Amino acid sequence: MTQLREQSCEACRADAPKLNAAQISALMAEVPGWQVIEPGGIAQLMREFSFANFAQALAFTQQVGELADSFDHHPVLITEWGKVTIYWWSHKIRGLHKNDFIMAAKTSALFMPGSD
Amino acid sequence: MTQLREQSCEACRADAPKLNAAQISALMAEVPGWQVIEPGGIAQLMREFSFANFAQALAFTQQVGELADSFDHHPVLITEWGKVTIYWWSHKIRGLHKNDFIMAAKTSALFMPGSD
Repeated sequence: MTQLREQSCEACRADAPKLNAAQISALMAEVPGWQVIEPGGIAQLMREFSFANFAQALAFTQQVGELADSFDHHPVLITEWGKVTIYWWSHKIRGLHKNDFIMAAKTSALFMPGSD
Repeated sequence: MTQLREQSCEACRADAPKLNAAQISALMAEVPGWQVIEPGGIAQLMREFSFANFAQALAFTQQVGELADSFDHHPVLITEWGKVTIYWWSHKIRGLHKNDFIMAAKTSALFMPGSD
């Protein structure tokens, strides 16, 4: 099976179905370190990444931001001293699409190249 | 009077006094667009900056981050499509120091060079 991080996002239309609980559960096994949160009832993937200082955190934000823009799928990134917190979800469907898991896997791979 | 944005941060020790309400009120006049919020009882300066797309927002995050690191005073930056939200406060004193107003003024000047 092709690893998530090597897949590309497909176009996500407003009428695309959200992932159901079983699909989410299966995909979660492929994105260790990420958790599902549901602020305002909208499921999102969230992960905190730790760094030794501010500059490293900022550089990671820049890397993930450029990755996001290249796929035209955009997260929320919170950058602070020694930490970047990232939230992926699909705005059009107000929930999780497989694209979000693909982007989460790609994000993790940027943090630690070679890992899942 | 030297404009805030042209001043430098002074060393902020843990026993430095927080700004009082009158001092905050006077300084607020010099940082239009910023507001004081108090999550968890910790006063912070917050402002949202709007952009035409994600790439511009990310570039602003990078600019403000580099500015912050050069003064060794670090904000929280939330980057998302078309928007960057920035929070300045002084962690050591769990509140607002003049440094935060200096950095807020410098941040605004990056957004629109030549303005306050």
